[in-house]
Amino acid sequence: MREVAVLGIGQTRVDEHWDKSLRELAGEAVLAAMDDAHLSAVDAIYVGNMMSGSANKQQHLGAYIADWVGMRYAEGLRIEAACGSGAAAFRSALMAVASGALDSAVAVGVEKMTDSPGAEITAELATAADADYEAGQGLSFVALNALIMRRYMFEYGWKKEDFAPFSINAHANGVHNPCARFHEPLDEKGYARAPMVADPINLMDASPMGDGAAAALIVPVERLYRQPGVPLVKVAGSAAATDTIAIHDRRDPLWLMAAERSARLAYAQAGVGPEDIDVFELHDAFSIMAALSLEAAGFAARGQGPHLALDGEIRPTGRVPIATRGGLKARGHPVGATGMYQIVEVVQQLRGDCGETQVPGAKIGMAQNIGGSGSNIVAHIFTVD
Amino acid sequence: MREVAVLGIGQTRVDEHWDKSLRELAGEAVLAAMDDAHLSAVDAIYVGNMMSGSANKQQHLGAYIADWVGMRYAEGLRIEAACGSGAAAFRSALMAVASGALDSAVAVGVEKMTDSPGAEITAELATAADADYEAGQGLSFVALNALIMRRYMFEYGWKKEDFAPFSINAHANGVHNPCARFHEPLDEKGYARAPMVADPINLMDASPMGDGAAAALIVPVERLYRQPGVPLVKVAGSAAATDTIAIHDRRDPLWLMAAERSARLAYAQAGVGPEDIDVFELHDAFSIMAALSLEAAGFAARGQGPHLALDGEIRPTGRVPIATRGGLKARGHPVGATGMYQIVEVVQQLRGDCGETQVPGAKIGMAQNIGGSGSNIVAHIFTVD
Repeated sequence: MREVAVLGIGQTRVDEHWDKSLRELAGEAVLAAMDDAHLSAVDAIYVGNMMSGSANKQQHLGAYIADWVGMRYAEGLRIEAACGSGAAAFRSALMAVASGALDSAVAVGVEKMTDSPGAEITAELATAADADYEAGQGLSFVALNALIMRRYMFEYGWKKEDFAPFSINAHANGVHNPCARFHEPLDEKGYARAPMVADPINLMDASPMGDGAAAALIVPVERLYRQPGVPLVKVAGSAAATDTIAIHDRRDPLWLMAAERSARLAYAQAGVGPEDIDVFELHDAFSIMAALSLEAAGFAARGQGPHLALDGEIRPTGRVPIATRGGLKARGHPVGATGMYQIVEVVQQLRGDCGETQVPGAKIGMAQNIGGSGSNIVAHIFTVD
Repeated sequence: MREVAVLGIGQTRVDEHWDKSLRELAGEAVLAAMDDAHLSAVDAIYVGNMMSGSANKQQHLGAYIADWVGMRYAEGLRIEAACGSGAAAFRSALMAVASGALDSAVAVGVEKMTDSPGAEITAELATAADADYEAGQGLSFVALNALIMRRYMFEYGWKKEDFAPFSINAHANGVHNPCARFHEPLDEKGYARAPMVADPINLMDASPMGDGAAAALIVPVERLYRQPGVPLVKVAGSAAATDTIAIHDRRDPLWLMAAERSARLAYAQAGVGPEDIDVFELHDAFSIMAALSLEAAGFAARGQGPHLALDGEIRPTGRVPIATRGGLKARGHPVGATGMYQIVEVVQQLRGDCGETQVPGAKIGMAQNIGGSGSNIVAHIFTVD
């Protein structure tokens, strides 16, 4: 396999983009990444997206976006792995370039959720769960996560307010990210009075939907014309794993086996361990997922994830900085785009471009994107010279 | 890139499978391919599918099918490129194995269309066209192809009945394929009296929808334990290209530029030309597409595709055998599965397993899968020792 680097990144703000179509959002991110990379053409476009067929009545996003950004005739396809679609698209683009089949590729995650009314989007999101045995019984995604969180609190003795620091950290960091959906800080009082969505998950435990697109352009290092002054971010590890699609089929519903496996594989490829990771963009779709991700990726012992948050170790200056640009909670969670936002944000950290929430001296970063209730997890590790 | 071979294939019959779920169909094909390959585990599952999110209320097919076939924890994702999803999934699996990232992968195309009522599936299929400028104006896929066919007849002086031999050949071959949807032969009279769908496309110019799944298991040749008595089918070329998603944006709507480009790239990789191809499984979703595909892939001059059909050269004993197992017309067109059926059928031809419709001495075969109105085309060339 050829060594691959991220040469350019681009993103739109996560927001309700009533004035922009799906292709305009994706196009903005792709063209920004190409501009950042100083490249005017790429061999292929890999689009991570979950719901455009239902929410926007548009599929076939490979051809659709390639055409829109002036890449007519380039290769183009869509990758779907539920909320893990973004990182899955990046991984496929990565393997195509690493294999030698392509000399450049852009991976873009895009989702335009606000075209779909509230109740419909809840049903569309539920297509990431088992249609027969979960969604068909009326289990929405927040309900599935509420079951996990309740069990977790029972098993390990946590109280609801112990999860507050996850959301508070995310909102504190999002304030400084112009692409974040929310720029309002949150405190304990705000968390405590948030309305309950699905007990014990309240509104401040749940990430907001939104419209947005984020893109990264990758090239093999051997073909690289380095840009003066821009640190070179390389892909050091990439792995993916699935777990049962239905939670009730797992031996231990409180352990993200697919996160453990994909993280372990990525660590082995990169020759690092959790202790070497300077910044960790995890998939805090719900605060319980942040805790489980920290544990499965090796940053905390089983059942002990909230300790890192309560001790302040998840802040940009802590031991395991997470959600440094707001995370899913404050940057927002446009589902098929989220994995690409995480990758873009890790690259920003390794380039040292994060201002107020810059992790000091960040050299190694990891992004972990989750599809479904932990049923498809993609991990990437990046390094900078 | 590592050289890659198809070690196993599997397929279900294309039919109205009211008694089987999406995962049961996919599982049947995947397990048959693994059985054929004598392998009990694979590193990853790549699922080609277009419409499960709307037609079956189930997305996230990577995890969904990996779980079902007992591949828990394997990598799994879905690839969507409209009707080209099947071959796009195969190509992504191929690059992952060729890159060295994976040592085995199964690509499965699956679609269960009959869960969705007639009018709805027409709208779902139209999501492969431009939602704003084509589908939004009421243009269904058959209507788009009717516009192309009418123009083609006008430009090159063909009569409607000149297209009959495409459908007659497909049905004659489908009779002998147990996995084909239709086993009834068709003659000129039957073609002539077929009801008009969208003038000039009649019911016998159009491929039928259906439910089905087809799979291929690939491994690097260097890791191969050859099975005695089974010819080894290698992937000699793989390429993909897009064109504008909307037909009106093309300089020449009668020329499949993405087919020309992907075929040329695949020919160059394989070191062959159209004259070397012994069997060509093309995308005869409509008979006009068969003509255009023959031309763009270099088998006929511009506007002259129907000559090959009228001269009998597309039959299994002709110069360019197409639709040798029934093609989209008679085997059926379960959209996201179709590209994988084509690949499975080429492998069957190169193994010499096609009985009555076996192409004598077939050594080199090509599969060409089209997404949208020619807007995304994937070509694969296979060889056998």
